[in-house]
Amino acid sequence: MNIKLIVEYDGTNYHGWQIQPSGETIQAVLEKAVAAFLGQSTRVTAAGRTDAGVHALGQVVNFFCDREFDRHRIRRALNALTPGDIAIKEVERVPDSFDARRDGRSRVYEYRILNRAAPSPFYLTTALHVHDALDVDAMKGAIRFLEGEHDFSSFQAAGCDAVHAVRKVYRTSLDQRGELLVYTIEATAFLRHMVRNIVGTLLEVGRGQRSPSSFAELLEAKDRTKAGPTAPPHGLFLMEVKYE
Amino acid sequence: MNIKLIVEYDGTNYHGWQIQPSGETIQAVLEKAVAAFLGQSTRVTAAGRTDAGVHALGQVVNFFCDREFDRHRIRRALNALTPGDIAIKEVERVPDSFDARRDGRSRVYEYRILNRAAPSPFYLTTALHVHDALDVDAMKGAIRFLEGEHDFSSFQAAGCDAVHAVRKVYRTSLDQRGELLVYTIEATAFLRHMVRNIVGTLLEVGRGQRSPSSFAELLEAKDRTKAGPTAPPHGLFLMEVKYE
Repeated sequence: MNIKLIVEYDGTNYHGWQIQPSGETIQAVLEKAVAAFLGQSTRVTAAGRTDAGVHALGQVVNFFCDREFDRHRIRRALNALTPGDIAIKEVERVPDSFDARRDGRSRVYEYRILNRAAPSPFYLTTALHVHDALDVDAMKGAIRFLEGEHDFSSFQAAGCDAVHAVRKVYRTSLDQRGELLVYTIEATAFLRHMVRNIVGTLLEVGRGQRSPSSFAELLEAKDRTKAGPTAPPHGLFLMEVKYE
Repeated sequence: MNIKLIVEYDGTNYHGWQIQPSGETIQAVLEKAVAAFLGQSTRVTAAGRTDAGVHALGQVVNFFCDREFDRHRIRRALNALTPGDIAIKEVERVPDSFDARRDGRSRVYEYRILNRAAPSPFYLTTALHVHDALDVDAMKGAIRFLEGEHDFSSFQAAGCDAVHAVRKVYRTSLDQRGELLVYTIEATAFLRHMVRNIVGTLLEVGRGQRSPSSFAELLEAKDRTKAGPTAPPHGLFLMEVKYE
């Protein structure tokens, strides 16, 4: 049977999702837990390969096993076999054809910013602290240019192995949510560091160092050197992966 | 001059507010920072003496200094001199007669519960995880009996040195806020472990082990042995202290 998991993790202590030659990864910890439960080495596939320090509230993972299990039993067992910073939120049996990565139709990411003078003990590793007052209206003006299908070369990390940089953005918004300023973007798929590069550039707009309309020019330019710096990973969350 | 601070802290790594013979406390760390800034040993007074593991988003503190300082400079200096799990949110000059503890007219506490099957990596030390489904309506029925002036002996920890156990509860509510079930209580002052004993008993109502009206009987009984267990400290937050 093919098992789909919805997984939450605090990425602070991990070298990202994907198994690396050195350094602990979410994938490695999860594969160890699944292997301990099933009694055999098992590959798990994730919808999004998050970078080091990036978090997830809705990562989607699937794996195959050749016995039948109750889904609540799988959830309890995997939660018992993973450390506290990784949690299996939901377990569902899916058709054998389902592949968490290939079948994902869109991904939703959030980038969380704590915009106030004082730092907060409660967001040290889960939001970017920005103490300068930000011009939120200007930032909202800038992100409007991202909606729709564009070539995102200007926001693509060097070393990204994507065949082309055209991505379709379904929605993008910036909202105050309690103490946090939350940037949300939903797109078919993302280039390496794309959200963090957008946020790093957006913060320049918020600080008045760049105009909102410069976002339109950036998309035209297709030149990474013209955009702002990459925002740090710890404000970024993979929120949801949508399937047909 | 008399300086009032609003302080946030993550209480996880501290033996509570008050200076102890052994074990680090919030008060000790704050007094060290104030002494380093002023260049002389200085006592700080807090509105609420939170227990080990309890957090604060709105602890109020005051201290005296004999020189004049800009309040932004004090905030920046104290934030630089304290570790990341303690933050000085606001600094205000107040009349010399102001005393954070004595002048507090009411205190607002929150107790945060994550009520779902799976644990969460993001609330390991900042909410109580309850995996059983809770009857929130029954819990709301129970807390209504707490409003107004009552003798809270049934909810008072052994060893509490209060002269009497009568306290006035201004408001008490239970609300779903995003993923969290949040219990809020505002009262003139609190007995030792009072909020945690209320929550521990309230969880018994939520699990159907005790009726909502048993809360009325508990207030009548004035007997700690009749109430439920003390809920753990890590779900509790001192939110606000109100002054005239």
